Amino acid sequence: FESKTEKGISWTVVSPIVFTYKVTESRGLLDPSNDTLLLGHITDSQQLEDLKKSTEPIKRFVVIDQEVYKIYGAKLTEYLETNNVLYKILALPTTEENKSMEMVLNIVEEVNSFSLDRRTEPIIAIGGGVCLDIVGLAASLYRRRTPYIRVPTTLLAYIDASIGAKTGVNFANCKNKLGAYIPPVASFLDLSFIKTVPRRHISNGLAEMLKMALMKHRGLFEILEEQGHMLLDTKFQADNSAYGNNCLQTASQATYIAITTMLEELAPNLWEDDLNRLVDFGHLISPALEMKVLPSLLHGEAVNIDMSYMVYVSKESGYLTEEEKQRIINCMVELELPVWHEACTMELIQRSLQDRLKHSGGLVRMPLPMGLGQSIFNETSCEILHRAHEKWCDE
Amino acid sequence: FESKTEKGISWTVVSPIVFTYKVTESRGLLDPSNDTLLLGHITDSQQLEDLKKSTEPIKRFVVIDQEVYKIYGAKLTEYLETNNVLYKILALPTTEENKSMEMVLNIVEEVNSFSLDRRTEPIIAIGGGVCLDIVGLAASLYRRRTPYIRVPTTLLAYIDASIGAKTGVNFANCKNKLGAYIPPVASFLDLSFIKTVPRRHISNGLAEMLKMALMKHRGLFEILEEQGHMLLDTKFQADNSAYGNNCLQTASQATYIAITTMLEELAPNLWEDDLNRLVDFGHLISPALEMKVLPSLLHGEAVNIDMSYMVYVSKESGYLTEEEKQRIINCMVELELPVWHEACTMELIQRSLQDRLKHSGGLVRMPLPMGLGQSIFNETSCEILHRAHEKWCDE
Repeated sequence: FESKTEKGISWTVVSPIVFTYKVTESRGLLDPSNDTLLLGHITDSQQLEDLKKSTEPIKRFVVIDQEVYKIYGAKLTEYLETNNVLYKILALPTTEENKSMEMVLNIVEEVNSFSLDRRTEPIIAIGGGVCLDIVGLAASLYRRRTPYIRVPTTLLAYIDASIGAKTGVNFANCKNKLGAYIPPVASFLDLSFIKTVPRRHISNGLAEMLKMALMKHRGLFEILEEQGHMLLDTKFQADNSAYGNNCLQTASQATYIAITTMLEELAPNLWEDDLNRLVDFGHLISPALEMKVLPSLLHGEAVNIDMSYMVYVSKESGYLTEEEKQRIINCMVELELPVWHEACTMELIQRSLQDRLKHSGGLVRMPLPMGLGQSIFNETSCEILHRAHEKWCDE
Repeated sequence: FESKTEKGISWTVVSPIVFTYKVTESRGLLDPSNDTLLLGHITDSQQLEDLKKSTEPIKRFVVIDQEVYKIYGAKLTEYLETNNVLYKILALPTTEENKSMEMVLNIVEEVNSFSLDRRTEPIIAIGGGVCLDIVGLAASLYRRRTPYIRVPTTLLAYIDASIGAKTGVNFANCKNKLGAYIPPVASFLDLSFIKTVPRRHISNGLAEMLKMALMKHRGLFEILEEQGHMLLDTKFQADNSAYGNNCLQTASQATYIAITTMLEELAPNLWEDDLNRLVDFGHLISPALEMKVLPSLLHGEAVNIDMSYMVYVSKESGYLTEEEKQRIINCMVELELPVWHEACTMELIQRSLQDRLKHSGGLVRMPLPMGLGQSIFNETSCEILHRAHEKWCDE
């Protein structure tokens, strides 16, 4: 569009971009006969056909978390060798403390020496949320955008980091201060990775699941309330004799609901232009808390402490009955999640909400649970915040 | 979209994003009565109204090239003071050699301490293409996307960097290896900045203008052929007695054509998904050449050397007559642009084209001029490339 005024000429450029990505559940991703990891992102059937016929080896750059590599490194190597892949595996200590631009640049340097075709040879990230976030940013920056694939190996990443478009690293002691909104070309989900996740990290993932349950799915809340402890014991796997046969079914059902509700929220708002976001529940105070006590709290634990406080705010605002509040807190305890932390002071809460105010168009837009499985956006008064904090600390 | 197969469940997420940005010509951007720099990016008339009425001071973070600051710093400060702006000006040596992630992180750190509202307070970049590219990347990374404004102060940036979505920095000795495709919210163009640009840098900008002329606008080629030297002498300003009154009109006409033809090419392909790009003319060999001899060649000079060689390739391929070739080379000479460089060896050319092949879906897709003001995409044989190189070096 061109317009002329007395001041000069002005052009308005309107350029729509469509991002398309796949989220695919597949068992046995590292089984050599499963080609999902290498070809599952390809949507064009002709291209897929050609690649399957081709005798040219496939080329892949894989970044994997160091701890995950210790467990699955041999299997991954065998997978790539058997499939005749030209590969480079980079194993990195992708912890929250190392989540920095420095590690992004390390990855980019290695990718550059490996020499990828930046259009057809996606970078594969295998690990927890931190790993997926760092690699996603590295790929988004390299040659202004290189496709990447996410393979979550923790429960938290399974239902959270692998679904959305966000990448990022910490900077200046602030969580995810630098990053991009560039979705992967595909996320491949394999529940069997979860069996080697430590118990505490299963709880960690259950916190994000509980978030979606409280915000918009009573059915999921009931599963977590009644079977959450079983999921924790069986690590989302089959064949645990103590619980009978349907534990895998319950695990699948719970992750299915978590993923679909998350997709419903994220897909229409991939770039976070809409400021009213249910997925922000548990994420207003927790970033500052998590960074303050690093590395003592896991992400989901910090989120749960935030949610637990918000449940008290909700109760004080009249959105929850005492009984509902108690059911939620009990459920959190059953999931072995912390429901309080001394570092979560009124001062930290107020600072976080002020920061939120600044970056959220002048409104706090605080998502609060309303009953079990519904929610409301709220601007809560200082008085309620204080009263809720007092009760929260007392109990 | 959800689909179930025997292997598991797969969701396909399709998420369209619309980028909108303005490119606005305005005289006297630093005139305190001109509010374009502060409010010109706002498209919502209600919001604009509210802001004009508000007594709250506007907050802006400005990054400006150090050399530009020496000339316009006092004027800029006066502009911001008069308009009651809370500001921070960061003057940086934004040269090609300093175009690195390090400088991006410097900027981000300063932005972070200044504390901007990342939705409503755009970062303003004032300078040449390098400055606009670096600041664009810093803004794109900060909080996953902070709006930014481009104010070009060189002719090259005026018709090139300020039009598109690309940002970037050099990495591992490769030009713009890291970056993003995130357009500014607005670019504000003021030809009067050009009057303080050194003569060599005007030629530098004329090279990119000539690129668009050769690719798709015979009229622009004729202006450059006939009046290019005048534009170089008058630096795109009015009132040069030796040339009469219409030199500003010619300058406006030339930049107008350059911008509109550039927008026609870039706007439908902001993310460079289409690999056939006319704007790549002059940009196949020049990146390697520019980095190889850094800092001796300016960007437009390297581009012109590339174009000059390609004109010989075009002639050898039968797309240009000897007379047309001669007219183009003469025009380049008149614009005081280098038409040959000893570092542009056959080996460098072949390496560049091979690299291109790798990142361009298996085809070189070489844009070549066909006559004056039209073009064709070509896969040129080795033999022609050699023959053209011999003749190019001879002449």
